[in-house]
Amino acid sequence: MAVSEILDEIKFNADGLIMAIAQQHDTGEVLMAAWMNAKALQETLDKGQVCYWSRSRGKLWRKGESSGQTQKLVELRLDCDADCILLLVDQTGVACHTGRHNCFYRAVRDGALVTIAEPEIDPKDLYGG
Amino acid sequence: MAVSEILDEIKFNADGLIMAIAQQHDTGEVLMAAWMNAKALQETLDKGQVCYWSRSRGKLWRKGESSGQTQKLVELRLDCDADCILLLVDQTGVACHTGRHNCFYRAVRDGALVTIAEPEIDPKDLYGG
Repeated sequence: MAVSEILDEIKFNADGLIMAIAQQHDTGEVLMAAWMNAKALQETLDKGQVCYWSRSRGKLWRKGESSGQTQKLVELRLDCDADCILLLVDQTGVACHTGRHNCFYRAVRDGALVTIAEPEIDPKDLYGG
Repeated sequence: MAVSEILDEIKFNADGLIMAIAQQHDTGEVLMAAWMNAKALQETLDKGQVCYWSRSRGKLWRKGESSGQTQKLVELRLDCDADCILLLVDQTGVACHTGRHNCFYRAVRDGALVTIAEPEIDPKDLYGG
């Protein structure tokens, strides 16, 4: 089965996108979720480095290209409906643009939305001040 | 902060939905991903049992209502862009309608999409034959 046949299995949405969840392969930490189109998925499988599709910028988003915080693909999984991908990755540094290790740093506790993790790296050091 | 104020923080998409990822709280297993609207989210926070929005059926999907495979909410987290939710849950039984423990049971290995987990329960026993 070539990459094209894997792509044929996937149910992209009306915008040609599929949601991808990135999980640190050894700790189980859910790092982030973002979108992929067929090109991003193909590049991810070809190169073994995770590439998303940036809806805001309208272009391929090679994770870590500017920040250095890359995601090496360990395994790509597909769900039962073929409309969601789970990426088992090895994260270099932090996954979140805020400098936090993962993007899910706000939690509902005692009826309030509270911040439960602080940045490990100053975003200025990731993207320039 | 009341639930309404938490809801105000969330960036629902044009269809009034937000993607929610369910993760088993103690093992880190990513179980499934589905959509929520404001009502589903409010009910989940109010009752502590996960409720999604079924796009195919166009109604609230109280996870496990027919199958008994419920998800007790342990913690609800929100990502940096406020457009994705991580649900830490305690899954009763299996999460996937195929009878598998989680929905991500297909993986790309050696260039092929292969099944890496088998059903633990016959779906007929979950939903009736």
